[in-house]
Amino acid sequence: MSNGTSDMQSVQERVQPLLDGGHVAELAALLTELDLHPSDVADLLEALDDTDRQAALVRALPAELASESLAEMEDGDDRADLLGALEPSKGAELLHELADDDAADLIGELEPEDAARILAALPLEDAAELRGLLEYDEETAGGLMTTELVAVRAEMTASQAIDEIRRQGREVEDFYAIFVVDERRVLQGTVPLGELILADTGTPVADLVQEVPVTLTADVDQEEVGRLLSRYNLVSVPVVGHRGELLGRITFDDVIDVIEAEQTEDILRLAGVSDEEEVRGDWQESVRSRLPWLFVNLFTASVAASVVFAFGRTIEEVWYLAAIMPIIAGMGGNSGTQALAVTVRRIALSDGPLERKSDAVGKELLVGLVNGVALGLLAAGAAWAAVEWFSLDPQLPFVVLFALWGNIVVAGFAGAFIPTVLDRFGVDPAVASSVFVTTLTDLCGFMLLLGLASILLL
Amino acid sequence: MSNGTSDMQSVQERVQPLLDGGHVAELAALLTELDLHPSDVADLLEALDDTDRQAALVRALPAELASESLAEMEDGDDRADLLGALEPSKGAELLHELADDDAADLIGELEPEDAARILAALPLEDAAELRGLLEYDEETAGGLMTTELVAVRAEMTASQAIDEIRRQGREVEDFYAIFVVDERRVLQGTVPLGELILADTGTPVADLVQEVPVTLTADVDQEEVGRLLSRYNLVSVPVVGHRGELLGRITFDDVIDVIEAEQTEDILRLAGVSDEEEVRGDWQESVRSRLPWLFVNLFTASVAASVVFAFGRTIEEVWYLAAIMPIIAGMGGNSGTQALAVTVRRIALSDGPLERKSDAVGKELLVGLVNGVALGLLAAGAAWAAVEWFSLDPQLPFVVLFALWGNIVVAGFAGAFIPTVLDRFGVDPAVASSVFVTTLTDLCGFMLLLGLASILLL
Repeated sequence: MSNGTSDMQSVQERVQPLLDGGHVAELAALLTELDLHPSDVADLLEALDDTDRQAALVRALPAELASESLAEMEDGDDRADLLGALEPSKGAELLHELADDDAADLIGELEPEDAARILAALPLEDAAELRGLLEYDEETAGGLMTTELVAVRAEMTASQAIDEIRRQGREVEDFYAIFVVDERRVLQGTVPLGELILADTGTPVADLVQEVPVTLTADVDQEEVGRLLSRYNLVSVPVVGHRGELLGRITFDDVIDVIEAEQTEDILRLAGVSDEEEVRGDWQESVRSRLPWLFVNLFTASVAASVVFAFGRTIEEVWYLAAIMPIIAGMGGNSGTQALAVTVRRIALSDGPLERKSDAVGKELLVGLVNGVALGLLAAGAAWAAVEWFSLDPQLPFVVLFALWGNIVVAGFAGAFIPTVLDRFGVDPAVASSVFVTTLTDLCGFMLLLGLASILLL
Repeated sequence: MSNGTSDMQSVQERVQPLLDGGHVAELAALLTELDLHPSDVADLLEALDDTDRQAALVRALPAELASESLAEMEDGDDRADLLGALEPSKGAELLHELADDDAADLIGELEPEDAARILAALPLEDAAELRGLLEYDEETAGGLMTTELVAVRAEMTASQAIDEIRRQGREVEDFYAIFVVDERRVLQGTVPLGELILADTGTPVADLVQEVPVTLTADVDQEEVGRLLSRYNLVSVPVVGHRGELLGRITFDDVIDVIEAEQTEDILRLAGVSDEEEVRGDWQESVRSRLPWLFVNLFTASVAASVVFAFGRTIEEVWYLAAIMPIIAGMGGNSGTQALAVTVRRIALSDGPLERKSDAVGKELLVGLVNGVALGLLAAGAAWAAVEWFSLDPQLPFVVLFALWGNIVVAGFAGAFIPTVLDRFGVDPAVASSVFVTTLTDLCGFMLLLGLASILLL
């Protein structure tokens, strides 16, 4: 394997010509010789960008590397096409190499007929296990867990347990904690492998067992899974059935993937991009995922426009209000976006039931009052200079001051209130919040500016 | 420890009255009895919200729980005040209980005189170790690593290694991988504890050693550390000095914290909030962190306003253009924000040197062309209806179509181009991108609309 990223540069120089030329067999030989990490091979597979060439490379690689590389590819259609293009027996061979959660993820992405063909080619036991995992919703603890784990009985001694681990451990990779169960496979706790080794050989496992800080049932949402593992710094967490029986475990690496995926989702949703869009997807997917929001936005912008239209007479009389409109609306939009981002993040990071309850809405109102008066005074000063210079209406600075101040206060309130309410009703606070907030700040901004102007300037 | 979050509700019911009443001694007794997780105790400490009461609770808790709870509190002034308020000997006792990376983080937050007093109260060896760790920048691999680890020599047999691990392991918690070093402590690789146990007792460690996929030097930025651990699914990664000697290790739990912190930073920066603002900070901090960006924004909005001002005669003649302005500018801003969020996220997630290079700018231009024509035609249709209804200028629909279309194309281009360029120059692509993008879409939107209008409608 490569030592860090420094010598990846030279790897790339050797790989690129083979990649560009489509010399798949030579490429496979080189990758095997270089002992490349599956994550790097996955990148190369993606870079090939052609299902036939990808399939040829996968066939040419050793099965273990090929299967791990498939597991490391980005989820999605490309990977499903590749696996679907392989012979069912080859696909089954690769899936057999993988941990069952990774295998289930791959199967779950396939077209039903491809999945059925590969499942039929797998040993009966494997296929049954995968069908069991596929029953769980992908975005729950059940969808994340692997059933491959090491469990010992509480009544064993440390040395018996170590023998048992030796036996089970050959099948399981990366076991961090040893689960302890009773005769009905009900979870009793865990014992760290280190503790077992440190203990005297005759010590009963029951004396070493540690309660687990968190157990999950299979239906827990993946966002909650990520929250709990990161909160309690857990390297793995058990998933149990309704009478407490051990079903599987979720490890930190799955959770890191979940945390990254959830945060991508938050950023994209805040920006009005549907979470079906993959950041490296093609342009057609982007159009499909974004256009609906833009249509909603066109509608909300038209509502704001109709407010301006309603004040037509004011604008006809005082045309330069049209130049001030974007300042009032834009500053409100930006203040609202700030309040929104902080509040959404605060909701996402708040994870404990014993946490300090604090009042986001009150704070943002205060911030809006202070920022609003600072910016309002500055803008009013500029307006006063413009009044002098261009002989505009001397009341203009007051209109600017109060419209800007008012709109920034509304923005702070809306930026905190909207996501808080959405969260309380169980809706993701990131979704659609920004559309509501900017629509509101546009509307209020125009009403304040044009309303005040029609009173003071006409 | 508690089993999941379900029974935390009842814990809260017992804790809250003691918390509200400030009954610190009873609270400490209850928390110890409940065997609460340090993360939960940390939340309670934060909820106390008064340094004297926090200090009293910390004194009343068992040292191990107290120290772990301090480590789990949010970084920042509150925690530093609390540690500073304790007697130096108590502070030293708590730090002594912690892993050295956590202890160094705590010391690093203190006022210099508080830090000096606590370091003076620590055993000389501990203090020297902490001073060594404090040399590293907090946001680098050196700042994240702990020096506490288990290392064995390559020439040992499996059973000698297990004995050595027994000896060292009593001091170290959560060792996942055993590091293998030579006589000069140069890192040779790792051997999973499981493999050592599975191996025959006489097998030399050298036969079991696995190359590590990634080693880091102490100066690697924490964002890169997070990227590598998540890319290669590593539970821990070694940090080495310049001749390859093992200095320490970084574990997955630190990395999860880094990933969460970096992503909070991205969301806040995209929204124009400086990364010094803590999501649960007070309102003064929010004003300080946001007002500078809003001043920048007031300036950029004024530039957009001056474009409108320059077209004063056009608006005087065709006042209803003022109602169309926010539609053109707003739709551009939203399209630009979508392109920006996807591109920023794509840059953040791209991590491999062998990755498929793809062209974000080209894709976003294409998306802009398609979305722009769809929205432009719809808006032009609405404009046509308005023309009929209110007897406006019959050329208006064409002006709306081309202004909206053009602005959405510009938005897509800017949303992809600006972060890509910032990233290439080594600037965080999230910072300030949104200000540039929305300023540009405002400017272009007004120029397109009013420019076209002054040609076609006057």
